[in-house]
Amino acid sequence: MKAEIITVGSELLQGQTIDTHSMFLSQELLNLGVTVNFHSSVRDDQEQLLALLDLASKRSDFIFLCGGLGPTLDDLTKETLATYLNVTLVQDEETTKRLESIFEGASNLLTQNNYKQTFVFPDGVIFQNQNGTAPGLAVTKHRQTYICLPGPPAELRPMFETSVKPFLLELMPDVHAIVSHPLSFFGIGESMLEDRIQDVVKKSTNPIVAPYAKEYGVTLRLTAKGKTVSEAQRLVAPIRKLILERVGEYCYSERDELLEEVVSTKLRQLNKSLAVVESCTGGLLAHLITSVPGSSQSFKGGSISYTNESKAMLIDEGIVERYGAISMQTAEALAEQTQRKFQTHFALSTTGVAGPNESENKPVGLIYIGLAEKGKPTRVYQIKLKGSRRRIQLLTAKYALFILQQRLKKGETIT
Amino acid sequence: MKAEIITVGSELLQGQTIDTHSMFLSQELLNLGVTVNFHSSVRDDQEQLLALLDLASKRSDFIFLCGGLGPTLDDLTKETLATYLNVTLVQDEETTKRLESIFEGASNLLTQNNYKQTFVFPDGVIFQNQNGTAPGLAVTKHRQTYICLPGPPAELRPMFETSVKPFLLELMPDVHAIVSHPLSFFGIGESMLEDRIQDVVKKSTNPIVAPYAKEYGVTLRLTAKGKTVSEAQRLVAPIRKLILERVGEYCYSERDELLEEVVSTKLRQLNKSLAVVESCTGGLLAHLITSVPGSSQSFKGGSISYTNESKAMLIDEGIVERYGAISMQTAEALAEQTQRKFQTHFALSTTGVAGPNESENKPVGLIYIGLAEKGKPTRVYQIKLKGSRRRIQLLTAKYALFILQQRLKKGETIT
Repeated sequence: MKAEIITVGSELLQGQTIDTHSMFLSQELLNLGVTVNFHSSVRDDQEQLLALLDLASKRSDFIFLCGGLGPTLDDLTKETLATYLNVTLVQDEETTKRLESIFEGASNLLTQNNYKQTFVFPDGVIFQNQNGTAPGLAVTKHRQTYICLPGPPAELRPMFETSVKPFLLELMPDVHAIVSHPLSFFGIGESMLEDRIQDVVKKSTNPIVAPYAKEYGVTLRLTAKGKTVSEAQRLVAPIRKLILERVGEYCYSERDELLEEVVSTKLRQLNKSLAVVESCTGGLLAHLITSVPGSSQSFKGGSISYTNESKAMLIDEGIVERYGAISMQTAEALAEQTQRKFQTHFALSTTGVAGPNESENKPVGLIYIGLAEKGKPTRVYQIKLKGSRRRIQLLTAKYALFILQQRLKKGETIT
Repeated sequence: MKAEIITVGSELLQGQTIDTHSMFLSQELLNLGVTVNFHSSVRDDQEQLLALLDLASKRSDFIFLCGGLGPTLDDLTKETLATYLNVTLVQDEETTKRLESIFEGASNLLTQNNYKQTFVFPDGVIFQNQNGTAPGLAVTKHRQTYICLPGPPAELRPMFETSVKPFLLELMPDVHAIVSHPLSFFGIGESMLEDRIQDVVKKSTNPIVAPYAKEYGVTLRLTAKGKTVSEAQRLVAPIRKLILERVGEYCYSERDELLEEVVSTKLRQLNKSLAVVESCTGGLLAHLITSVPGSSQSFKGGSISYTNESKAMLIDEGIVERYGAISMQTAEALAEQTQRKFQTHFALSTTGVAGPNESENKPVGLIYIGLAEKGKPTRVYQIKLKGSRRRIQLLTAKYALFILQQRLKKGETIT
């Protein structure tokens, strides 16, 4: 099965919007075992879109069209596809009722233009839109299936999940179940990770093993197809085991989650509390933690001691004077003072040179992370990072979370 | 002049990477007066790329090819283009010397594969790569110009700015100067902004007025072409004035910069200092400020008082008990205490409900931002935001910066 994705909208060609749909749909289709061979973006221009539809219908089985389903005259995706397929759109009763109920109480805002969205393909499929007014549409002609989806990501993504995916699975009679198992890694570069498992990636076809690199880590996705969910799961199991035997120490989660979510959940489960004190990360570590809903149950607060004066408000000035702000000793003292001040089980500290310039004659990227735990000796980790200020700050904050996560995993905590 | 952009790489079609080049190049080309009609992504597949080149050469004058210039066998953009144009690539002496000098001291790492990158088009143009090993290449055949650029954004973007843009300007004899003037707005929605200036946007062709929406604001870019820079500037001036007359109060910068950069620069210029205390933004405000290099000159530090206990460590417990943590009074007391504690000219405080659940029976999105200034009465701003937790936290932090920027702009500061 071959697919291609067409995104429609002049704003894409003017560089005003980035196309996130092609990436999202390509990932989802790969997981379904559908090969995506082309992405294209075109303007809201009937002639250009007609030419592209002609080309697409010759080279793909599934043609996804994203955007251009809105109520304005510019929006012409559906109408152009109807012209290309030589069919006449028909008004759908249920879609009309839905539209009118959305505008209930504001019917003065419902113009004739809006009714454009109630027209659908005869003999087509309608995907109702839970988050907007434009329904998604699918129509099969000759051997091609055309799938029109609304442009806003907040409409397209849930519609894909709830309606389009089941629709596609129905069209693939030999696939009954798909299992997709993520393995998220931190502290190992993408190329190093791929090096250590490249034989597995190459040899394994069911499950497919696909790496997705983020700015600070890599997620491997193991996707298996089978007659039943448990058959697909059985196929995933040995490959998962093989990968974890090789690089398991870097794996922080087997779910679609961020390091801060893992740490937040684990702290809550263990009923442990945390405070932070940040120099070089300047608030980013606390921000990552508090971006997780419900983090206030375990996160008690923190300090941003960005300057030496503000460090002296927290710890013995002599330490900074003797060893420097960027030192093991300062990281240690900051973490310990913060653990005592906030009366938490854990405290993390960061200090280092985020750049772009060196500081205290220490090089950009030299970082100390302290982890204090109530009733335990404090440990300080030295790391050396490369890259922009932004990258160094982000990686430092993520490393601090990783260090805490490793401690929580070991179950070394005392009650 | 019509252009199209082709990005090459199987990782794009598998959804492992997002295509940022098409957006970047479209913006830049729009500013040069070149219309971009198509974006396409294809796999590292010679046959598919050949078919696309054939199509592109029939519909565009400039064809940009991004990626696939690396040293591995997968990388076949240049080679496929040579096949399509029926030319033989030749080894370039200067490029070879550059490559060998990059690997100097590590010549054991320089394999035969690497020399692939020293082959160029006969009669073509070479754009040396300041940030990598693959040079950019341009070649004109019949009426089409093909421009091959390296895939990594950190290589492509500077190469475009320093080499490709001047190359393109040479090909446009009637354009001698381009002036692009940004106006950055905060606190006004995109549709509201467009509403208030839509007649200007529609009527103005030189300069073109193009809006670029971000998550928290909008930038308008006024781009004029002229025989000289001063002619282009003269064309920009009246349109700039007209727009600022209508929506100037929301404009925070006339440069390509973020709110935190504007605030950081202004604080340094005025030799003023700042501290923050964050409840609902949980470190994000401090993070935005400290993401700016050199911010330590004016930013002294801060506290994250995420829980009521941690607020009680800073201010009179009675205030939180009487009025609640999410209140004018708490925002006021936190800002004033922080200004005194850090002995700064200014202190910002944030408290509110970031969601997803309400708190103290107050609705999600209710926010208080306090601004304390040494020797001046403290002001507290109440705002109501909508959206996800992530969006509410980000907008709150940005609003706090905007409030401080407005104060700094008014010059109400005392020495």
